[in-house]
Amino acid sequence: MAAKRSRRTASSRRRSSLKRKPFDMALIQRGARLRRSPFFDKTLEAGCKSYTVYNHTFLPSYYSDPVTEYWHLLKDVALWDVAVERNVEIRGPDGFEFMQLLTPRDMAKCRVGQGKYVLITDEDGGILNDPVLLRLEENRFWIALADSDILLWAKGVARHAGMDVRITEPDASPLQVQGPKSKALMADLFGDKVTSLAYYFFTPIDLDGIPLLVTRTGWTAEIGYELYLLDASRGPDLWDAVLKAGKRYNIRPTGPSDIRRIEAGILNYGADMTIENNPYEVDLDRLVDLDKSSDFVGKAALQRIKDEGPKWKLVGIEIDGKPIEFNVTKWVVTAGGRAVGRVTSAIHSPRLKANIGYAMLPITHADLGMELTVQHPDGPRTATVVKKPFIDPGKEIPKS
Amino acid sequence: MAAKRSRRTASSRRRSSLKRKPFDMALIQRGARLRRSPFFDKTLEAGCKSYTVYNHTFLPSYYSDPVTEYWHLLKDVALWDVAVERNVEIRGPDGFEFMQLLTPRDMAKCRVGQGKYVLITDEDGGILNDPVLLRLEENRFWIALADSDILLWAKGVARHAGMDVRITEPDASPLQVQGPKSKALMADLFGDKVTSLAYYFFTPIDLDGIPLLVTRTGWTAEIGYELYLLDASRGPDLWDAVLKAGKRYNIRPTGPSDIRRIEAGILNYGADMTIENNPYEVDLDRLVDLDKSSDFVGKAALQRIKDEGPKWKLVGIEIDGKPIEFNVTKWVVTAGGRAVGRVTSAIHSPRLKANIGYAMLPITHADLGMELTVQHPDGPRTATVVKKPFIDPGKEIPKS
Repeated sequence: MAAKRSRRTASSRRRSSLKRKPFDMALIQRGARLRRSPFFDKTLEAGCKSYTVYNHTFLPSYYSDPVTEYWHLLKDVALWDVAVERNVEIRGPDGFEFMQLLTPRDMAKCRVGQGKYVLITDEDGGILNDPVLLRLEENRFWIALADSDILLWAKGVARHAGMDVRITEPDASPLQVQGPKSKALMADLFGDKVTSLAYYFFTPIDLDGIPLLVTRTGWTAEIGYELYLLDASRGPDLWDAVLKAGKRYNIRPTGPSDIRRIEAGILNYGADMTIENNPYEVDLDRLVDLDKSSDFVGKAALQRIKDEGPKWKLVGIEIDGKPIEFNVTKWVVTAGGRAVGRVTSAIHSPRLKANIGYAMLPITHADLGMELTVQHPDGPRTATVVKKPFIDPGKEIPKS
Repeated sequence: MAAKRSRRTASSRRRSSLKRKPFDMALIQRGARLRRSPFFDKTLEAGCKSYTVYNHTFLPSYYSDPVTEYWHLLKDVALWDVAVERNVEIRGPDGFEFMQLLTPRDMAKCRVGQGKYVLITDEDGGILNDPVLLRLEENRFWIALADSDILLWAKGVARHAGMDVRITEPDASPLQVQGPKSKALMADLFGDKVTSLAYYFFTPIDLDGIPLLVTRTGWTAEIGYELYLLDASRGPDLWDAVLKAGKRYNIRPTGPSDIRRIEAGILNYGADMTIENNPYEVDLDRLVDLDKSSDFVGKAALQRIKDEGPKWKLVGIEIDGKPIEFNVTKWVVTAGGRAVGRVTSAIHSPRLKANIGYAMLPITHADLGMELTVQHPDGPRTATVVKKPFIDPGKEIPKS
């Protein structure tokens, strides 16, 4: 039956299902348990239609619809409330040594004023989080978290570590400003000090008295920045100032673009990797420095996994047939009628005119060109293992 | 303007705003990042209208409306999918010793087969979670968590603790069966072995081959039980079996009742207490055994706080005026025009015909009878500090 539906029908159905009424808070929040970002009231006012929950805090998903917002990100500049990227601060006389213990990446290669994309791993090499780390001082670091309580993990590890270190959640709330016109907007707002930043570097700066850290980072592989607001009470002021200055660049608030991040080969913690996965399975070997001088949590396990070779692999896949909706469950992947793995993310790329995503597969089924079957809710589809990223970011966005 | 609205108008507005269409998943989930409980498909099928997110997993909030579901809980029996109470297992030769380290409560007073309501505290005595603990064996414990990643905390603390202990998330998904008719239903399903359980005790048992632990616990101060499903693949089978057997008792799936838990003086982690609060502030002194023989995380800090006396107190409050909606932000409390504290939970109790809740106040403003002002979104209201619980559970439900 699925085969009879024309591509046009599927796509108009998709469009209409995405035209939603303004969000009704009662659908997700009863009581005051979940946290609100400093920009929350502004996102409601801007007509956010869908929120999810991330680090116990509301995360705006979209305001119009994800496809419109994707094209906007590619052409102009988009503003994302990602204050849910809660930070953990590591500081104290042993701050450097403790940060070395927490991540497999070698912090000796990270200068003050520089950032790094890092992993936090447990004793078994399982991935607990994949934050963006900033080195603020020799012995002071911030890590902007994916969705897990690394504040608790870090405090726990510190308990008997015998290091002099203080671990807290600082008042820091990132806003992402992403897209080709973001650089011109940064020039208008801050001038050279920000536009001259090399990729993954950052600077403290203020905007009309609003204290910020601005980083050249993002979740898009487009040109982009993050404005870490350092005084939560100034959230609405910062939001308004950026929107006002961005008007000439056609700025608008949008949700984080899953289409764009999948095209770019970027992973989403919780979907594409969890505590069950190690860095070798998800092609993040470059974030593991087994030969760094100090010990780190998971070192022995990761050395063993590297020596033996990983048994699973997160691969790029292209799924045949008409455009799919973003997968909200992890569809089963079969080979010869037998379940072998799962799709972790899958979405239609309007630019590639293809269904793209990732699947976690046994190493025996992970070779490029391998043909498999995805158990899509509407019926089975052929899928092929392909190279990722799907769109090369080019020289502008080197690896972090 | 608010004063002009009649009580009747307010209440019919409330009723109509709670009559919602079936839940549209896209309002909260894009992608496969968030987890689904083993009962999730059944809750959708049963017409759940609102979900929230708890421990990275969907939690059904209500199916009809919270007031109808409250009355149902008081009269009959209600079925809650609380698989979001993810468990952490502590086991190994040093399991007992490690559990003693993790909680201020004395585990020497908890027998195998018995449960306890406990706190997990950090070095500063801050509350990280308030799980229900089950002692499965001498050296094997489960803690069913509120919304924070205690798996990571416990693994972190264990890292350098020098104890032989293994920490994992077991395959255990609680369903609450609560209300006056729950005991008869348990008798039909399981017989004596369950109905003879003393408060906070538990037993392993199976239901037509579905492996379970049944505990005499709950979040209601009504008679109630929790069925911990021990094989996630059997979720739909368990759901159907309980609903079928419960038909004669007028069972229905509902969300957890915030009205009932507030009447009972039960706290909600994230709203009424967070890492910023210590047990003395929230009247949970009885969960702190400062004189237990072994050390625990936070002991020195808690001793100091006890000696000095807490500076804040979570008090019961009654708020004047027409029925309120459940507070979704923490309303400011003022005294003499000055902000002094916050309302953490507040709701209308249909049985008490009063607006009841909790406020976190400086000890100077926390005496019974103290009159304060709550900055309600519709305008200021007078509030009075009152005794909690608002409704005494009586002898049937002793303190855990």
